[in-house]
Amino acid sequence: MVDQRFFEDYEVGAARQTLARTIGEADIALHAGQTGNFHPHHMDAEWCRTQSYGQRIVHGTLTFSICVGLAADIVNPRAISYGYDRLRFVRPVFIGDTVHARVTLKDKREGAKRPRHGIVSEALELVNQHGEVVLVCEHLLLVERRPRPSS
Amino acid sequence: MVDQRFFEDYEVGAARQTLARTIGEADIALHAGQTGNFHPHHMDAEWCRTQSYGQRIVHGTLTFSICVGLAADIVNPRAISYGYDRLRFVRPVFIGDTVHARVTLKDKREGAKRPRHGIVSEALELVNQHGEVVLVCEHLLLVERRPRPSS
Amino acid sequence: MVDQRFFEDYEVGAARQTLARTIGEADIALHAGQTGNFHPHHMDAEWCRTQSYGQRIVHGTLTFSICVGLAADIVNPRAISYGYDRLRFVRPVFIGDTVHARVTLKDKREGAKRPRHGIVSEALELVNQHGEVVLVCEHLLLVERRPRPSS
Amino acid sequence: MVDQRFFEDYEVGAARQTLARTIGEADIALHAGQTGNFHPHHMDAEWCRTQSYGQRIVHGTLTFSICVGLAADIVNPRAISYGYDRLRFVRPVFIGDTVHARVTLKDKREGAKRPRHGIVSEALELVNQHGEVVLVCEHLLLVERRPRPSS
Amino acid sequence: MVDQRFFEDYEVGAARQTLARTIGEADIALHAGQTGNFHPHHMDAEWCRTQSYGQRIVHGTLTFSICVGLAADIVNPRAISYGYDRLRFVRPVFIGDTVHARVTLKDKREGAKRPRHGIVSEALELVNQHGEVVLVCEHLLLVERRPRPSS
Amino acid sequence: MVDQRFFEDYEVGAARQTLARTIGEADIALHAGQTGNFHPHHMDAEWCRTQSYGQRIVHGTLTFSICVGLAADIVNPRAISYGYDRLRFVRPVFIGDTVHARVTLKDKREGAKRPRHGIVSEALELVNQHGEVVLVCEHLLLVERRPRPSS
Repeated sequence: MVDQRFFEDYEVGAARQTLARTIGEADIALHAGQTGNFHPHHMDAEWCRTQSYGQRIVHGTLTFSICVGLAADIVNPRAISYGYDRLRFVRPVFIGDTVHARVTLKDKREGAKRPRHGIVSEALELVNQHGEVVLVCEHLLLVERRPRPSS
Repeated sequence: MVDQRFFEDYEVGAARQTLARTIGEADIALHAGQTGNFHPHHMDAEWCRTQSYGQRIVHGTLTFSICVGLAADIVNPRAISYGYDRLRFVRPVFIGDTVHARVTLKDKREGAKRPRHGIVSEALELVNQHGEVVLVCEHLLLVERRPRPSS
Repeated sequence: MVDQRFFEDYEVGAARQTLARTIGEADIALHAGQTGNFHPHHMDAEWCRTQSYGQRIVHGTLTFSICVGLAADIVNPRAISYGYDRLRFVRPVFIGDTVHARVTLKDKREGAKRPRHGIVSEALELVNQHGEVVLVCEHLLLVERRPRPSS
Repeated sequence: MVDQRFFEDYEVGAARQTLARTIGEADIALHAGQTGNFHPHHMDAEWCRTQSYGQRIVHGTLTFSICVGLAADIVNPRAISYGYDRLRFVRPVFIGDTVHARVTLKDKREGAKRPRHGIVSEALELVNQHGEVVLVCEHLLLVERRPRPSS
Repeated sequence: MVDQRFFEDYEVGAARQTLARTIGEADIALHAGQTGNFHPHHMDAEWCRTQSYGQRIVHGTLTFSICVGLAADIVNPRAISYGYDRLRFVRPVFIGDTVHARVTLKDKREGAKRPRHGIVSEALELVNQHGEVVLVCEHLLLVERRPRPSS
Repeated sequence: MVDQRFFEDYEVGAARQTLARTIGEADIALHAGQTGNFHPHHMDAEWCRTQSYGQRIVHGTLTFSICVGLAADIVNPRAISYGYDRLRFVRPVFIGDTVHARVTLKDKREGAKRPRHGIVSEALELVNQHGEVVLVCEHLLLVERRPRPSS
């Protein structure tokens, strides 16, 4: 859904929760293929049986991409991502897990270098079907400021 | 290629460069599909023509995933990613760009909490066909320590 | 297989049955990705457990696309689809179901507006492994008429 | 975005427009693969050059699936599709076209057979970058009625 | 299309030609992903510009798979592939090429070891839009023999 | 990993083993889609239950493509495949099987027609999780010779 918002419209503390989705084996296959990352942690079910988790683990880059994608269900064409901080894979994600994202607006500040934009920082958390946080990160957005009426 | 390495085998300052690959429109289509991120910056060529870059931009999560995937051409089953810091999208990536990664071992330290593992930090940079850095981040790895012979 | 046929070659009442195929979780993942339709009925296995069917349901647009695709095993380059009527999802399709299509030629008529084409109407039915019809629709085709010898 | 709505909340005449997306060659390749529909109208660029449109045409089932997917950006877990009427491919869709959907609520009525649900009918139109309608259909939804307080 | 045929029904010398299809960049992306083969001949457009062909080449394994797939438009459930001989990549296949297959039945013989099956050998050729053969191979099939009436 | 090697650097008898990967249902779905090969041996789980193997079999062209892809983890830009001999599907591969490749350098010889290249022949074997060989073939490579210093 489109939601046109200027920097001034973001409220610190606002929180929302996204839809959930189940991650399947096909998601791993496609992501391995798209990235070329065929690490045995993700692709070799036999070897994984001999490791501590006992099964394949979803790629961190996929878990992260899905988290960001879930949070992108509301599209603001006036905002663009410019980075992420403190991305951590807190718990493993397994084939068959169902995850949703929580988005909390943590901070907003005017950018010294860019007078027409502000910087918004969101905390993203990905949560599995047991209510456990599996991934956290801080998302940095550059958002257009509301144009001032010329006087 | 598999390269079994313990924490002790990593050398600070070691650097390498990966193969390059060209990012196509199919990559954007697949990544939008895998993440559900259909933001017009990535999917709407008409609207992008009216914006500053004049064309579609590759998803940040895809650029990042490809960077990590390129660096995963050497597989060390004794290492596992646990996070990334200071991920920044320095320049836009466009359809048709050809990118490769540079990996530099920045730091290694023993983990206080995990006596059998050490923490290795790599600087990842993704570079386009003009030699411009388009993405940077810091990759954090947990690596098994070499078992000590029991005395 | 190619089968060149003019409007005059279609026989009302002719019926055939296609090959069958099993629909997997990957099909749902790809279709959600291609359409951007991540409705929890298709994507959220946990929530589906709390609903009447107890499990995920294949997208109606995918079921329909597969039905049409199965019926397209015989390719007539002289025919083109121009629409469908009374498309109904009669029963849910689940992951793991095996479906085949039945195609029955229902009607043919000359088009008033297009003297060189006729209109053919086929009944399509998609049938699951229990012999139950899961989807019905009426397929409308525009087919070239056989050229008349100039006298 | 989730938007919980009962049958009583739908307003006849309400209209909205979705985001737009550009259809690429990869979309055709994936849809052909998913449906098994390799008709030369979609897959054979050489032969298409000899036909009236001069280029490949996007599968009707894909155009339809994308139209429905665009309209599914607002998810109402209380509604489920049960069919479509009068689906027509009004104009061809080509590789590189950018399309968006228009959704207009046309009609709502109580279902005789299902006392706890009502039937909602939406007009869907898919519009290309030239403002031309390329596909129309009528979407039929079964929507939960608001529970009555027991007296 | 299904075509039930016993070993006795195959005629040496019978030849047919399949539909054609255009190979796109998406096909390369998907095949690289499915096989993990990211060789610069297929994936790095910049480097390929410095090589003799001047552009990316379709994976040999993809060209071969497409050739076999085109020839599989007629499905005989009584036959199964058991191998291929003398597979040669005669000319490079480029993105945008349109190819079709020619299938010629070369030989049939009874298998000494398997009294209920015969061996059929087909010559497969893949031909591009210039009429040039790009791939040849010999396909070996194990086909059920017609059951003898018990006397 | 890139490993620049001239013809002179190849040693007859050298052998190596690749990483392993698990083949999933998604791999079959994608390969059927990419090739158009929807043979019931691969796609119809119900019918397969009535056949000798009792379950679906991975496409031979996919098994072969995965074998070649696994062996392509070491990339030599000075080598190019020109063909394969005696490709045999020794045992069926099923959904869920985990396979790795063994590569043995069998032979090298100077090519009469191409003074600047030599021909290298590798034996490829694909091995499943029970240690059984499922596919064998002979891979033919054209490799650049080391340039001679001009005297």
